[in-house]
Amino acid sequence: MFENNKVNLEVLKKRAYNYRWAEVGEDIIPLTAADPDYPCAPEIKQAMIEYVQDGYFSYTPKLGYDSFKKGISQALLQRKGEDIPYTQILPIDSAARGMYIIAEAFLSEGDEMIVFDPCDYLFRESALAAGATVVTFPASLDEEGHIDLTHFEDYVTPRTKMIGLCNPHNPYGKVYTKEQLEFLMSLCEKHDIYIMNDEIWSDIIYSDAEFTSIYALGNDRCHRVLSVYGFSKSFGLAGLRIGCIYCSDQNNFAKLVKHSQVLSTAGGIASISQVAGEVAVTQCYYWVDAFRKHLEENRDYAVERINKMSGLKAYRPQGTYLLFVDMSAYDMKAADFSEYLKETVKLAIVPGGREFFGDLSEGYFRVCFATSRAILEEGLDRLEKGIALLRESKGIK
Amino acid sequence: MFENNKVNLEVLKKRAYNYRWAEVGEDIIPLTAADPDYPCAPEIKQAMIEYVQDGYFSYTPKLGYDSFKKGISQALLQRKGEDIPYTQILPIDSAARGMYIIAEAFLSEGDEMIVFDPCDYLFRESALAAGATVVTFPASLDEEGHIDLTHFEDYVTPRTKMIGLCNPHNPYGKVYTKEQLEFLMSLCEKHDIYIMNDEIWSDIIYSDAEFTSIYALGNDRCHRVLSVYGFSKSFGLAGLRIGCIYCSDQNNFAKLVKHSQVLSTAGGIASISQVAGEVAVTQCYYWVDAFRKHLEENRDYAVERINKMSGLKAYRPQGTYLLFVDMSAYDMKAADFSEYLKETVKLAIVPGGREFFGDLSEGYFRVCFATSRAILEEGLDRLEKGIALLRESKGIK
Repeated sequence: MFENNKVNLEVLKKRAYNYRWAEVGEDIIPLTAADPDYPCAPEIKQAMIEYVQDGYFSYTPKLGYDSFKKGISQALLQRKGEDIPYTQILPIDSAARGMYIIAEAFLSEGDEMIVFDPCDYLFRESALAAGATVVTFPASLDEEGHIDLTHFEDYVTPRTKMIGLCNPHNPYGKVYTKEQLEFLMSLCEKHDIYIMNDEIWSDIIYSDAEFTSIYALGNDRCHRVLSVYGFSKSFGLAGLRIGCIYCSDQNNFAKLVKHSQVLSTAGGIASISQVAGEVAVTQCYYWVDAFRKHLEENRDYAVERINKMSGLKAYRPQGTYLLFVDMSAYDMKAADFSEYLKETVKLAIVPGGREFFGDLSEGYFRVCFATSRAILEEGLDRLEKGIALLRESKGIK
Repeated sequence: MFENNKVNLEVLKKRAYNYRWAEVGEDIIPLTAADPDYPCAPEIKQAMIEYVQDGYFSYTPKLGYDSFKKGISQALLQRKGEDIPYTQILPIDSAARGMYIIAEAFLSEGDEMIVFDPCDYLFRESALAAGATVVTFPASLDEEGHIDLTHFEDYVTPRTKMIGLCNPHNPYGKVYTKEQLEFLMSLCEKHDIYIMNDEIWSDIIYSDAEFTSIYALGNDRCHRVLSVYGFSKSFGLAGLRIGCIYCSDQNNFAKLVKHSQVLSTAGGIASISQVAGEVAVTQCYYWVDAFRKHLEENRDYAVERINKMSGLKAYRPQGTYLLFVDMSAYDMKAADFSEYLKETVKLAIVPGGREFFGDLSEGYFRVCFATSRAILEEGLDRLEKGIALLRESKGIK
């Protein structure tokens, strides 16, 4: 399923937006947005075609299809040991939307949210959209390669209302240990802080790591945890806009529902997207697992190659299909480095810096390797060539 | 296409939610939510199936597909004489969402929005969600059957920031004349007020009426107009969640885009929904026009029948597939009347009252006639029987 010839570039060049094939120049390879270059599992296509045949696209239940929610609930339990009743899962049109809903439901002006830096920009943006103040926690890796939480409590103030937890972490690709989650939870208990728990990457964990959900601390302790999951990373369905929010506390769930606007029909998720999502979680984890195997080979290959390139240092991710690469040796803005690669060797990557991952990601870039080995190889050839040209132009031997 | 046997009740009973077939008891006829009982145009199905075949559901362009927006722009011009460049049309996941975005972008706490009563609840709810204060304008019909605007200006205060214009009006089914629109626009110019212009019903206008868009006053005068359109009423695609917002002023459009959250990917509309929407506006107006012809026959039949029922008075709509019926002769709450019909004759209708149309709609109910003649006939038989039973129980001769 993940051979080179299974990537259909003709279709991708028409359909893949968000810094990808359809948005970059004809001859550019985009290792940019976290979106697979492979088509989705065949079962998903089949179910969608069958659904369309009848020609009915009537209003959906406001809280989503029960069968879809039951499928999610079962998957959360079987794959991650999370015991969430289906009545506390709200299907919604993307994990990103879920984060905005959580922020809007629980944050007000004057409240502070601690956001890791680097981390996906949606934590910051959702907090800002809710009128909250963002407090940046500088998230470096310790000697064992874990995210170092030693000084985390220093960033807690009486106004701290929420912590953004990205587990596994994008862009480091690191999972949190149970001890780390215990530490964060204790802080939240001590200071009465909510956790925005983004598990969109939790299906993509490599064989040398293990995902620990914060729910491993028990549902009772997790009543301040507000979770999101999405179908773009595991199943390649970004364009269908499928995600969900869930939590173990009934009152908090009611608050999320209220702010999601699903009760007025202003919020919601398309019927056919729910049909696709249901098949994904009930029938297609075999596909996710095969994809993950392919990705692990890509990871090993890419980390090894990049770390042989002068002046670059790639972190080895435990999960996600992203590499976060230190390019600070070149003493140039990541955005300029990104432009340089695009112009000289026709390679697009995601630059560090405020826009995507936060200020402290300056001097880094991110590479997505959810593609075929052939495209990844060509992309890394171009990166290698770009580095050589850069060194030449800077007179570095 | 609109014969009795084209309604597939088996599918509707599984798929039609929001107070319709799948949410009411097995033997109840729901003439409730404004959602057709017919399947969509075949071209829409076909295009969706072709799109799904490739199996790619990658990220979409943040501002929507250009081809879809060009299709909408052309339809606005050809069908309604509205000259809006496609770059000022934002596809979004429902007209309802569009109203919330407009309210959030232009209203703040302390601002007042004038909302007609009766009128669709989304005007009120979107204003309240934005933190604004709702000022209710009692909208009765004058002797000619137009919405009477005589005392409208009395409701304007220095804090009035927006007027909600539902054209054609749901639930009265009335269109506004150019003179009425001119009157409202002059007020908005005088007091610097925005117009939330909901044209979701503008395709369903009967042969004895004519729709006049507020844009007939000229794009220059319409820079305070913020418009929404949706694909649920004309094309029966509520479950795909397709709508758009548009305006003739570039700066206002930029503000709408910002508040829509599409730039962060938290907002947006599914790729396949855009594919369906594009085919709808470029190929399926022949279907809408045939549907409208069927609906006009249903309207004439239903208005005549209901007006023969003792104590009921149905307004004759110029547009929409909704009948607004005065039942105040029975001196009971519309919600109780609704319950009575459900229990005694297995008919579901939408009761007037605060929830759906505003306080002043108490003593009224709404009937949707976007169904087959056979189902409509059976529904009205039940209504007739219900009225007879009610009179009997109340001892009215």
